[in-house]
Amino acid sequence: MTPNEKIQALRQLMQAEGWDAVIISGTDPHSSEYLPQRWQVRQWVSGFTGSAGTVVVTHDYAGLWTDSRYFIQAAAQLEGSGMELHKLGTPGVLDYPEWMAENLPANSNVCVDGLCMPLATVRSMQTGFASKGISIVSRPDLIDALWADRPALPDAPAYELGMEYTGRSRADKLAWLRDAIAAEECGSILLSSLDEIAWVLNIRSSDIAHTPVVIAYLWVGSDRAVLYTTESKFDAELTAALAADGVELAPYGSIVASIATWPNDTPIYIDGAMLNYALYEEVIARFGEDVHDRTSPVKLEKALKNETEIQGFREAYRKDGIVQTRFFRWLEGALAEGERITEIDAANKLISLRKEMDGYIDESFAPISAYGENAALPHYSATPEQCSVLEPRGLYLLDSGAHYLDGTTDITRTIPLGPLTEDEAFDYTCVLQGMIALSMASFPRGTRGCQLDVLARMPLWKYNRNYGHGTGHGVGHVLCVHEGPQGMRQNLLDQPILPGMVTSCEPGMYCEGQYGIRHENMLLCYEDEANEFGDWLAFMTLTCTYIDTTPLVEELLTEDEKMFIDCFNTSVYETLAPDLTPEEAAWLKTKTIDRLFDPEEL
Amino acid sequence: MTPNEKIQALRQLMQAEGWDAVIISGTDPHSSEYLPQRWQVRQWVSGFTGSAGTVVVTHDYAGLWTDSRYFIQAAAQLEGSGMELHKLGTPGVLDYPEWMAENLPANSNVCVDGLCMPLATVRSMQTGFASKGISIVSRPDLIDALWADRPALPDAPAYELGMEYTGRSRADKLAWLRDAIAAEECGSILLSSLDEIAWVLNIRSSDIAHTPVVIAYLWVGSDRAVLYTTESKFDAELTAALAADGVELAPYGSIVASIATWPNDTPIYIDGAMLNYALYEEVIARFGEDVHDRTSPVKLEKALKNETEIQGFREAYRKDGIVQTRFFRWLEGALAEGERITEIDAANKLISLRKEMDGYIDESFAPISAYGENAALPHYSATPEQCSVLEPRGLYLLDSGAHYLDGTTDITRTIPLGPLTEDEAFDYTCVLQGMIALSMASFPRGTRGCQLDVLARMPLWKYNRNYGHGTGHGVGHVLCVHEGPQGMRQNLLDQPILPGMVTSCEPGMYCEGQYGIRHENMLLCYEDEANEFGDWLAFMTLTCTYIDTTPLVEELLTEDEKMFIDCFNTSVYETLAPDLTPEEAAWLKTKTIDRLFDPEEL
Repeated sequence: MTPNEKIQALRQLMQAEGWDAVIISGTDPHSSEYLPQRWQVRQWVSGFTGSAGTVVVTHDYAGLWTDSRYFIQAAAQLEGSGMELHKLGTPGVLDYPEWMAENLPANSNVCVDGLCMPLATVRSMQTGFASKGISIVSRPDLIDALWADRPALPDAPAYELGMEYTGRSRADKLAWLRDAIAAEECGSILLSSLDEIAWVLNIRSSDIAHTPVVIAYLWVGSDRAVLYTTESKFDAELTAALAADGVELAPYGSIVASIATWPNDTPIYIDGAMLNYALYEEVIARFGEDVHDRTSPVKLEKALKNETEIQGFREAYRKDGIVQTRFFRWLEGALAEGERITEIDAANKLISLRKEMDGYIDESFAPISAYGENAALPHYSATPEQCSVLEPRGLYLLDSGAHYLDGTTDITRTIPLGPLTEDEAFDYTCVLQGMIALSMASFPRGTRGCQLDVLARMPLWKYNRNYGHGTGHGVGHVLCVHEGPQGMRQNLLDQPILPGMVTSCEPGMYCEGQYGIRHENMLLCYEDEANEFGDWLAFMTLTCTYIDTTPLVEELLTEDEKMFIDCFNTSVYETLAPDLTPEEAAWLKTKTIDRLFDPEEL
Repeated sequence: MTPNEKIQALRQLMQAEGWDAVIISGTDPHSSEYLPQRWQVRQWVSGFTGSAGTVVVTHDYAGLWTDSRYFIQAAAQLEGSGMELHKLGTPGVLDYPEWMAENLPANSNVCVDGLCMPLATVRSMQTGFASKGISIVSRPDLIDALWADRPALPDAPAYELGMEYTGRSRADKLAWLRDAIAAEECGSILLSSLDEIAWVLNIRSSDIAHTPVVIAYLWVGSDRAVLYTTESKFDAELTAALAADGVELAPYGSIVASIATWPNDTPIYIDGAMLNYALYEEVIARFGEDVHDRTSPVKLEKALKNETEIQGFREAYRKDGIVQTRFFRWLEGALAEGERITEIDAANKLISLRKEMDGYIDESFAPISAYGENAALPHYSATPEQCSVLEPRGLYLLDSGAHYLDGTTDITRTIPLGPLTEDEAFDYTCVLQGMIALSMASFPRGTRGCQLDVLARMPLWKYNRNYGHGTGHGVGHVLCVHEGPQGMRQNLLDQPILPGMVTSCEPGMYCEGQYGIRHENMLLCYEDEANEFGDWLAFMTLTCTYIDTTPLVEELLTEDEKMFIDCFNTSVYETLAPDLTPEEAAWLKTKTIDRLFDPEEL
């Protein structure tokens, strides 16, 4: 079927059901960042392969809403589909709910797949639609009737992530969770975020690219818990282990009917920002007013890494440091010998080196391998059709990461492939100063990421330059590479940075049509000291990949900054050298120990 | 009457009226920072003279709630009154609304003077009291019956602050205000903040210490406006000038009856955070649902100073620079000659020098003149009974300001009176680095004060030290020395710093029992440039009083910081020298031009 035929089929369904419009959000029932194929409905309908967008179809109109990252790609992919592209963020362009409120006739019926839309999104649309009497109907899996060969749920095995990696037993986490919801006077909780479920139960799988989670819902009551999932993914041993902790398995699709059996003598805890609308409606039918809708307590608890997880992160960054040393050495050699290397070749080489490491699971996201002007697009993704060849000049940016059994990495290095322009060297230095300033921060308990964000920006702001993305995000432990609740951004998020949180620090500078620079280290927040002025926190860097100092403009650097770089590169060398070949270690020495600003000071 | 007798009298009134408790908030009907004597009810009842606190009286209990600034003072002043002191912020101590919710019997009647409590405070109490059925009754001026010789409203003349100072006519401001409320679909507005009224009408008086405003309410309708005030304060000329702009005068007390006559065919705009509860109830009675309760539009508009006001601020700081040069020269000489000078002597000398300047109106707040360990109390106030003598060693802190017809100043300098300890010199340097870092900031439009605050703190945070107050507050133009809506604080206030805003920058460091340091300059935000990265703003320093560089630890300073200090002190000298005597100029030269870090660089 062509997109056009699919839309015609959808309109027939709309006619039959009495719907005036259908919204296809292209998310899954769990608000996941990456989607299994089964829920790539937006792509199936429209042919658009970007990671963000919404399709709206009426009887005489079809449109796709997406953001600036995808304007060019979407325009190309929608060609011939009859769908109009709405460029979000462009002056005068309404988002789809506002567009619908303006363009649909009064008292229209709008159908959504309530499984694939969070409660909070539906609520906000309902408010916007109220004045025109537009109502929302939910039809779970509405696309099933049209998508003949729709992929099934993934059936890869689930496995237990052992105590040696998690440092905290499932029984302990379940006990903590029951206490946490009891403190809010709830007797049960429904979890629908896949990383929260995987964290609570210490289980992992490969259901979703770059996210080693299990597709499931988890209901936890006062003395038992039920995991709604694909039972065949669980072998006898894991099933028994779960049962021993009071966790039963049930079919994924049985949750809807099951809700009616949950004890409703105490309130249930849900997180309406994450829970899908279809399940929420069932919960309301069962619990009435006794629904406690707040951020899941797992969100913060999961972000406060314990000692075992922290050790795992260190180990993962050590492995990644070995991988990247090998990768950058290979790249330098290959370019020196005049080999033809594309951005994709380089990414593939990196992945192949990672796969050699013990405990490697998956990349934690698709690597961004970007040369020259391509790196000026912060979300650039090379494709075989459009992909630059690396030349012995200018800057190459590599943003990548992996899940190991130990922990998850996310690291960006920008390195010179040869001579740089003055602007490139200047910006390279300023961006690094931003990374260092945030890494060196001490701050009193209670300080939020939005207060610290400015430290990473000020070396650029000083010259009236800036980057258009956040400075840092939380990173899950063998879960999602982007996790909350903390962030280092310009928007005012009232979440303090707390000991045990692992947060990226990744300022950048993007010069359109010329070059892009980003330096990213991973920071662990820890308790420094308590004194009469407060309870003091600071950051420890987990990343263990050298910083290339050749582009640095030394006169811009303070003594503190030089000392930071010297200490960092020395520590990288000392940590990695024992596990490198003599040739690799010698090469890393030329990038680190041989190039210190002030070797005497250390 | 002793406090005890006053409380007995109050209890008789409570008995007669059927009240179970009375709250005495000790604020005025306009949420003013400083109070005229008429509204110093808390002090009259309790004998406590602090600037913040609340008294609660029941039939068998009386208590005062206040914060840590006043624990010692309140304990002393309450002695023998039978009132219990509640130390706010101390573990386990409830604030008075929570204490009342816990300790009053169910269905109690609580009486407040609704004129002296903002709507928002009453609303929040009502929520807290609801579960016990406690209700709030409002009795305006309830204290009148007991306070026989209660002071009348001040009768000092009102005067017009001319276009040469305000730069914007009353007619223009009224037209702007009508447009602003029309944009919110309102036809009228009730202003109760005294500085907002003074700003809109370009009038001033001396009704309140340190705040040159007129006690009044202002109602602005679509084609007329009424100023409810003490009419005798307005001479014929000013009355006529107001009338020419459609502003009528009416007696202050007539507003309550007058509300029933205001046109109610369009909604009225009020600011419930500032408007008192008694008037709000009358407004509701007249307008029903047609009340638009939001922050007053005057608040932001008033904070965006125009060119004339900015020139006025410059002139005020120039005058203050002359005054302080004379003051610090006098102090140095007097101490060298062994004169006995107390903290109060010094403050009085400063005020006497200010009074010699053209256009001097008043101090903008009571000067903080604090020597040695006294300066470690950020809100220290010397009294004749408790007042240190200045010695030729250690640090002396002077935080003061004035209203001139041109503008308002607020400045803190901490200067060495002789040898310093290493800690004193180190902290003096760090605090100054904080002031410089914020002063030098560039930032994109949209950045809030809570993002920039950290810049002033980081030189102290670096050593796990901090100060317990905000970094900066807005300053009114011949109005309140503390004004919103902006602030530079650690709490997340979503108000960008905008061009035209005048905000203090005053980091500090307080070492209990030893010394206190604060450096305070006044910063004007201005538009720097617009480029592809945004619309860039920066600060210009308005303050024109030299920074004493003798205590600075030079090796802590960066080149940028030294350059800032050199430029600042050079500019101070060049601005002030023409208006100083040759002796004064020569003395200032020894503090500035003769002590530059790098005279060649300028």
